[in-house]
Amino acid sequence: MATIALLTDFGTRDPYVAAMKGVIAARCDARVADLSHDIPPFDVWAAAFFLRDVVPYWPAGTIFVAVIDPGVGTSRRILAVERDGRTFLAPDNGVLSLVVEDRQSCLSGQAGLPVLHSVDNESLFLPNGSATFHGRDRFAPVAAALANGLSLDELGPRIDAIVALDYAPPSYDCARAEGTIVSVDRFGNLVTDIEAARLPFARYAAHAGAHVIERMARTYRDVAGAFLITGSTGRVEISVAEASAAALLHLGRGDRVTIVPA
Amino acid sequence: MATIALLTDFGTRDPYVAAMKGVIAARCDARVADLSHDIPPFDVWAAAFFLRDVVPYWPAGTIFVAVIDPGVGTSRRILAVERDGRTFLAPDNGVLSLVVEDRQSCLSGQAGLPVLHSVDNESLFLPNGSATFHGRDRFAPVAAALANGLSLDELGPRIDAIVALDYAPPSYDCARAEGTIVSVDRFGNLVTDIEAARLPFARYAAHAGAHVIERMARTYRDVAGAFLITGSTGRVEISVAEASAAALLHLGRGDRVTIVPA
Amino acid sequence: MATIALLTDFGTRDPYVAAMKGVIAARCDARVADLSHDIPPFDVWAAAFFLRDVVPYWPAGTIFVAVIDPGVGTSRRILAVERDGRTFLAPDNGVLSLVVEDRQSCLSGQAGLPVLHSVDNESLFLPNGSATFHGRDRFAPVAAALANGLSLDELGPRIDAIVALDYAPPSYDCARAEGTIVSVDRFGNLVTDIEAARLPFARYAAHAGAHVIERMARTYRDVAGAFLITGSTGRVEISVAEASAAALLHLGRGDRVTIVPA
Repeated sequence: MATIALLTDFGTRDPYVAAMKGVIAARCDARVADLSHDIPPFDVWAAAFFLRDVVPYWPAGTIFVAVIDPGVGTSRRILAVERDGRTFLAPDNGVLSLVVEDRQSCLSGQAGLPVLHSVDNESLFLPNGSATFHGRDRFAPVAAALANGLSLDELGPRIDAIVALDYAPPSYDCARAEGTIVSVDRFGNLVTDIEAARLPFARYAAHAGAHVIERMARTYRDVAGAFLITGSTGRVEISVAEASAAALLHLGRGDRVTIVPA
Repeated sequence: MATIALLTDFGTRDPYVAAMKGVIAARCDARVADLSHDIPPFDVWAAAFFLRDVVPYWPAGTIFVAVIDPGVGTSRRILAVERDGRTFLAPDNGVLSLVVEDRQSCLSGQAGLPVLHSVDNESLFLPNGSATFHGRDRFAPVAAALANGLSLDELGPRIDAIVALDYAPPSYDCARAEGTIVSVDRFGNLVTDIEAARLPFARYAAHAGAHVIERMARTYRDVAGAFLITGSTGRVEISVAEASAAALLHLGRGDRVTIVPA
Repeated sequence: MATIALLTDFGTRDPYVAAMKGVIAARCDARVADLSHDIPPFDVWAAAFFLRDVVPYWPAGTIFVAVIDPGVGTSRRILAVERDGRTFLAPDNGVLSLVVEDRQSCLSGQAGLPVLHSVDNESLFLPNGSATFHGRDRFAPVAAALANGLSLDELGPRIDAIVALDYAPPSYDCARAEGTIVSVDRFGNLVTDIEAARLPFARYAAHAGAHVIERMARTYRDVAGAFLITGSTGRVEISVAEASAAALLHLGRGDRVTIVPA
């Protein structure tokens, strides 16, 4: 049985996710998994980093459907991507950048380049569909068709390139690393994109805004105050034990972080 | 395998939904789908419109369980309804109005009238159940029994009528349509009950509160400022691109909208 | 097919739950049920009472995974517990107290004492796992191994005792009962730990803060103002019809309640 894994910015208060699930249930026998429906509205960036952190843990065969789609109904394409046995459906707006782009892909250590298609085969969509809800009218029936065994070749033509996320990866040299806070989690941890394993020094400090964070910890309970910790994706985080580093330090997504030897 | 689709106002912070799922898992092998648990507390209206927008997309055989039940434990009935192969369990408080009532039903285009039962068969309920949580003690075991093949006749007697939702549908004539904002979604879109296909004019404007909205759009990115758009259920919405029309226009659920030719 | 039931304080906005589900999906064919991911951050107490109210309704064979884990990465143990056919994985921080401890256990009426193990078998964990996310790196793969039939003996050694929750159960005598508000639900109901069936008087009143609540009700619609009602776990609650007793009375979790005859 196939698994369809859903990621949206629809929230759970409105009928949008439930309508998508209905279309899927009516058309195939796949298992449906909720990745999250709480991506902030229109926040393609948040969804791209969410996928980066999640996709490698799911097995080959999973069909990911990411509907963060401020351009719904415009001429933006719908993408279907296959990589390392996983399939992805999403609007062509950067949400798949960190899966597809070689330099940054969360799957780049694996075998295989991505295969990209534009989903143009209208016979797969719901008849008389809307211009405002492609999640229900296009993504859901196409995901169901894939779960039923349809190949990507039947969705539409191969394409070469996709829209890239507006994101500059971190830089590393022997004196410093420069990166960005890419997310703030519910605990208030400030998650940067700087990979601890790529730092050429074992002891370091971080400069962020007006702050210098010099303590390092291995777990959230090792020290008091703000500290640096290697988070669950191997990247440097700024944290405070059982409190919100974001609130205490007035730092947030997009803020720059510089790491220097200590 | 049957699917039991749950809609409640229980939220996800408290143990109520998890207890219901436990009762279901203990008694049958159905697949359980979360439609939403974020209906505002006691908001029968919101749940009725949620079901209207979702039910037609689910396949025959689905067992819908809608527990928005401010009258739990009182003499209000529990309804079991079958229509077009779908089954519905809900308190008799209007939550099923837009499924059952012929003039407004989201299923009225389909074959078949609704079959209504009152769920009176106490042998199906959990023993020593509470007066305050029928979701767990009555709805969940009855849903499981239905998933195991029990017929509606075994739940309790046929009935003729149900409690109606306090709701006046829109009116249409050749000079104007008058309707209501029936929901505000997470994006701040103001969703009316006025069906665009029933308007006898191609170009129109909306009067709502002190506002006149004259721009029309096909997608959320076509124009700046507030505009009218045909939403995903074919009804007129008032929207603002990537912003909340509700917040910008100070309009909300229950506000009246008049559509006139432009 | 086994069921893995997840309880966390991860929320649904961040990629944490979705990563756990991926690890499970990659390693076994279990059904995954969301109990809740909205336990307040680090709130072991809330999770312990959540489990108390939910566990008895789930069938034997269920694998519960409770990751409320402020001590992640420290020397705190991971527990595996088997009781009455159900299995539990959780950090050893009190979250399983109301399942395991005899005097208070929600399963104590059932046959069987709990069997306790410390999960020490590192070969079951994800390779190169983090010190900050054992939900993904340890709990999820161990749950999958259990779903695949591994016995608790293979997880690690038997142990005798676990960390207890910081919680004093209520006291009862013939003149009064003294207890605590242990949770406030989304409706604002103040849920105490005082069991109505253990009160040696049929009519009673509650003293809480500066309030005396003297009205008693069987359903939420029987009376106006604040009233006492036997909630869905058989315990006394302080409620207000279709309003929040917590907000109106300025009472909350941890506040003491005394019940006296009326």
